[in-house]
Formats: sequence, C-alpha cells, structure tokens
Amino acid sequence: MLTDQQILRIPGPSPIPPSVARAMSQPMIGHRGQSTSDMIADIRPKLKRVFGTEQEVMILTGSGTAGLETAVVNTVAPGEEVAVIVTGAFGDRFVKICKAYELETHVLQVEWGKALDPAKVKAFLKDHGSINAVFATYCETSTGVLNPVEELARAVREVSDALVIVDGVSCVAGVETRMDDWGIDVMVTGSQKAFMLPAGLAFIAASERAWKKIEANPQPRFYLDLIKHRDNIEKDTTPFTPALSILFGLQQVLELLEEEGLEQVYARHDLMMKMTRAAFKAHGIPLLTEDAAASPTVTAVRPDDFDPEAFRKVMKKEFAMELAGGQQELAKKIFRIGHMGYCSPADMLQAIAAMEIGIIKSGKDIELGKGLGAAQKIYLSEGETQNDL
Amino acid sequence: MLTDQQILRIPGPSPIPPSVARAMSQPMIGHRGQSTSDMIADIRPKLKRVFGTEQEVMILTGSGTAGLETAVVNTVAPGEEVAVIVTGAFGDRFVKICKAYELETHVLQVEWGKALDPAKVKAFLKDHGSINAVFATYCETSTGVLNPVEELARAVREVSDALVIVDGVSCVAGVETRMDDWGIDVMVTGSQKAFMLPAGLAFIAASERAWKKIEANPQPRFYLDLIKHRDNIEKDTTPFTPALSILFGLQQVLELLEEEGLEQVYARHDLMMKMTRAAFKAHGIPLLTEDAAASPTVTAVRPDDFDPEAFRKVMKKEFAMELAGGQQELAKKIFRIGHMGYCSPADMLQAIAAMEIGIIKSGKDIELGKGLGAAQKIYLSEGETQNDL
Repeated sequence: MLTDQQILRIPGPSPIPPSVARAMSQPMIGHRGQSTSDMIADIRPKLKRVFGTEQEVMILTGSGTAGLETAVVNTVAPGEEVAVIVTGAFGDRFVKICKAYELETHVLQVEWGKALDPAKVKAFLKDHGSINAVFATYCETSTGVLNPVEELARAVREVSDALVIVDGVSCVAGVETRMDDWGIDVMVTGSQKAFMLPAGLAFIAASERAWKKIEANPQPRFYLDLIKHRDNIEKDTTPFTPALSILFGLQQVLELLEEEGLEQVYARHDLMMKMTRAAFKAHGIPLLTEDAAASPTVTAVRPDDFDPEAFRKVMKKEFAMELAGGQQELAKKIFRIGHMGYCSPADMLQAIAAMEIGIIKSGKDIELGKGLGAAQKIYLSEGETQNDL
Repeated sequence: MLTDQQILRIPGPSPIPPSVARAMSQPMIGHRGQSTSDMIADIRPKLKRVFGTEQEVMILTGSGTAGLETAVVNTVAPGEEVAVIVTGAFGDRFVKICKAYELETHVLQVEWGKALDPAKVKAFLKDHGSINAVFATYCETSTGVLNPVEELARAVREVSDALVIVDGVSCVAGVETRMDDWGIDVMVTGSQKAFMLPAGLAFIAASERAWKKIEANPQPRFYLDLIKHRDNIEKDTTPFTPALSILFGLQQVLELLEEEGLEQVYARHDLMMKMTRAAFKAHGIPLLTEDAAASPTVTAVRPDDFDPEAFRKVMKKEFAMELAGGQQELAKKIFRIGHMGYCSPADMLQAIAAMEIGIIKSGKDIELGKGLGAAQKIYLSEGETQNDL
C-alpha cells in the first residue's frame, strides 16, 4: 500500500487544507503584540458571519467540551433547572456537565438516529414549568442527525423564557447558521470539524438576552468566564494565552471560507451528503437517519448484512481510509462517514468507489459502480448549480 | 468549489508525500558538514537498489534535461555517430542535444504511441555501421509508452558495441529497473516523477563499459562531468553545491520506498495502470497505446467523439483535477493521466469516477459507474495480491 497516505473520512478531526497547515507553521510571535491584535481584528467580523450574528464570537483556547462547559457555567445560576434534549452521545455530554454543577437537569431523550421534535420540546417545557435553559445539539455527530434548531428556538419562545443553548460543534461552518435570525441564545463550536483546524479552539457567541443573564450570573468561573473573553476580544485581544498557531490557521480558514463563499460552502456540504446517501440507497444498505433529519457533515450507515467493524478494518487496510464507528448504544452497529470542511465532491466519489470495494471484501455481494453511479447522477443534477453560484 | 484543493494527475510533477514535504522544510545545514555526508551515505545504497545497479548513482542538481545532456557529453566523443530512437517528444530531446554537440545523429523514428521494436533497432544499427551510442526512452511521457529497454539492450549487443543510454525520467522508481542485469550502460532520471520530489535533481548511473568510455572521452565538460561527480559521491559529497532541501526530501522518499518495498511499489503502479485502462475500455474510449506497450506511470487516451481539451477544462473547473494534454503532433488529440509516485489505487478510483462525470459534461453520453466498476473489478482481482505481498 502507498506509504504515507491517510484518507481521513471521520467526522472530526477533519483534514487540514495545505494553506492552513502552512499558516500554522509560522514562527511564534508575541500574543500581546500588534500583529496578534491585527489578526484578531481581521478574524472577528468573519467569524460573526459564520455564526450569523452581530454579537461577538469569542475564541477560547480549549476543546469543544470547554466550549460546552462555558455555555453552562455562564448562562445557568447555581440551583437553577435546565432541560437537555439528548439525541445522541453529544447531547449526553451536556447532561454530564449540568449534573457536575448540580443543576436540576431534566432530560428529554430522543431515539438515537432521530431528530428532536419541537412540538415535543414545547410539551416537555409545559410539563416542567421552571426551566431556565434548554440545551440542544445542532448536528449530533454520533448519529449524523441535524436537529431543527431554528424551529426548536421558535417553539421554546412560544412557551418559555428559557435560553436556547446549542452545541454546533460538528456543523457550524459547514451548515448555514443564522444565530440572530433564529433566536439562538448561545452557539458553541470547536475548531476541528467544519472549521478545518486541529482541535484546540472553541468559538462561542451569546445573544443580548443571554448576555443579561451572563452578567448577572453568580456562578463561580474564571478561565471560562465569557465576560472576561468579551471585554478582551472587543479590544482585539484574549484574556489568557491563546493557542497562537491555531489562531494563525483560523485566520486562513476564514479567508478560504470567504473566498469560496459561505453559500457555496453550505451547498457543497449539502451535495456531499446527497451523493453519499444516494450511493447507499442504490445498494439498498440502510442509513441510520431519514433524509429530513440528515446532516450535511456526517452520514451514519447501519448495515444489516455485513459487519461495520470488519468493514472499517478493510477500508483502513486496503485504502488507508479511516471511517468512524458507532458510539455507546450504536457501538458496532453503524459506521460513520465524515464529509465536512476540507472535503470535496471528488473526495466523496473516491470514498464511495472505495467503500463499494470494501463492502464486497466484507462479504456483501453488491453491483460494483452502482452506488457510485447514483452519486455521480446527483452531482450532475445538483453540482452544476453549485459551480455556477 | 472547495478552495485550496488541487488534484494533480499529470505525468509530473507528481504530488509530494506529506512526510517528504516536512523533510524538505528542515532548516538549511552546511552542505560540506558531516550531517550532509551522513545523509548522502544513507542515500547511496538505496538509490542503487532503485536503479538495479552495483554502480554509483550520481546526484546532479539540475532538471531531467541536465541529466540527459550529462549522458551525451560524457559518453560520446566529438565527431562520433549516434543513433536516437524517437518514440515521442522526449526521444526528440535526445536528438536536439546530440545535434547541439554536432554529433552525427541517426534518428530511428517510431510512430508516436507505439513502442520501439528491438528487431528494427538491430536492422537500423546494421545499416549504420559506426554508431557509438544508442539513445532510447524507457517511458515516453508524451505517449504513455513503456519501451522494452531490456530487449533493446540485448538486441544492440548482438550487432554492435554501441553504448545503450536510456532516459528513465518518467518511470524509474515506479517501474522495475535492473540496469546491471539488463545491460543498460547509462540510466538517467529526474526527481519530479516517480521519485515524488520537486524537480531539481537528476540521477544518473553508468556501467563499467560506459565508465571506460567516460574516462577516455575528450569532450569538454565541467558541471556535468561525471568523473567529478563519481569521485565526490564516493566520499559522500557532491562536486558542487547540491539542492539541499530536495536532498532532504530524497532521503525520506527512499525511506518510504523501502518501507513499502520496491516490489510492492511496482505492483501498485501496474495495478493503477490496469485500473485506468479497464475504465476507458469499458466505455469504448480509445487508448493511445496497446496493452503490451503501456506504461504503469502514465496513460494516454485518444477520444474520438469528445474534445480532450474541453474535457481537461471541465475536470479542472469541476474537480480542480489537472490532467495533461498532448504534445507536438498529439496536441489537442489526446489527454494523459499521470499515476506515478505518491498516487494510490484509491486515487485512481477518484480520478476515474470524476472523469466519468467530466466525459458526460464534455458531451459524450456514457453509462455512469461502468468504467469505475471495471476498475473496481481489476482492484478486486489484482489488488489482493498486492496487499498480501
């Protein structure tokens, strides 16, 4: 096998574009100097566009979980009640964080592989009168579900004053996000998914409504205190030492996103999702999620007549292609294909063509080229629009 | 379209493996110091294995053409007669160099797209009694032909004492090369093809027979004087300042080739050739060369019902995939796909799947997935052997 080739098709970390890798290898500079401030000044408006907000997007040095914890400790006061809508492993993480802070945590469990239902959330909130914050996941990485967070925020507002707090880790920058228009109070994401960077930065923005709560919140916090972060980023700096090389990379990523155009970036992710799904449908191999609930950044496949773990091993051995397995209750039942960030329709053609061989080598007899043909047809009918945008 | 992605499927330069790019970005060191000598000492035996020779392989800083000129000025004395077997644009380059040195140059022209015929070379040499050197091309990049240089050398020996000098630029390190066993007197190659490096180094080795001629040759030469190069590399150094960063890269490339194993490297190239050819055959799209004359490193396609130039533009626009066009008499008549060096069967699945879309977009109606299916079948029947080697 060709040495030194790794084809990373897991839902994060995602591959790093060459120009971003180059940017990250710049020599270190003083993070309190003018160059760093100029860089942050360049980053700020671009990051706001990705989040669809006029509010500041704050940059924390930490992984996505630090971002999730930041959302919790800044918006919820000790002793308050919260609702967490759990659609998979990452919804579960919000539960764990809330419980660590001994918040009264009401869990609305949704079957893994299904999207949350805003009407059910409304009913849940009516049943639990004193919820201060509702936590949800935009893209549930563990199942490949994209939850309808716009409809969720609308539904919550109809029955409650609770803040709507969304984990956007595995989709923001790959899927349209209009925080302000949709009435999302807090949006969190990390650097290693659609942001095409290594893990190490978390991005978080809060609505005016949320800021009022944050400013009045007595919950003890220091490193994750959003007020410190806001007061600093408004002056083009950070309260604590930033992960400078990833910041160099972020500046270049935002440049690339603007160059391609956010509309086109989202259309590309949508196209890659459709190509992937069409391929498995053509072979009659079950997808975990319905079309309406599918995420443009990750697809989960639940084969009923070959072993996903054996299949993943074959893909790694034959093509050095890494796919993800299932987590928790879906362990060994599904495999997941990441198609986010630095990933193109051509990359999906490759993944699909290689997976067809992998499926055969895993013992399932399929017609070679059939799934690929279905993906090619999707490209031909939809890709055109994308390139002409 | 995904910004910052370039899929390079031309027959050189070829993509650089990440570990080689990292090796090349090392800080400069003194090229007369011990570290450089240690590096050259490490490189020497590995380079010999790639050439299939016990002789020194010398490293010149220059492009492939410098290597070809080195072959000419070292092995042919002023006023001597030479034969050049021209099977395409690169055979032609030997003619130009020989004529620049006012050598009496006899050209055996072979139809472009066909391999040289050793029997015809034998007859040609019989007709021209005083030929001192025969020049030929191993892989003719412009047509995708792999010439039978082993048979050529044998045929020449049967009728002549002429040296057999071979341009191996676009295949050595991707195709088996056994210089000593085959009786090749001089073999030349460059760094930017199957060697997975940027252009800038040329590698050249000579047989004992050739060395006798080189040592006695009065042809004026300095930078390209092989005697200087040999006397220096035997002491783990170079006569002139080497392209140090490419030398760093060469050391890592040879490491990768040894890690994969030369046998496997050659099997991988052979597999990629067969996959590519099977795909076009399945669609009834004519290949320029016959199977027996086909190179494992580059495939030329001569479509009869769509425009190769328009097709190449589509591939670039849709997939940022670069294919090569035709040269000289084949200009605008063919397109060429490079599959050498840092290129895997998975990369060929991608190229084939994308080219099917490109062909449709160029106005030819084909059954999507059919060529890919043929390539997948080849992989399934032959790839196994490769991974089990």
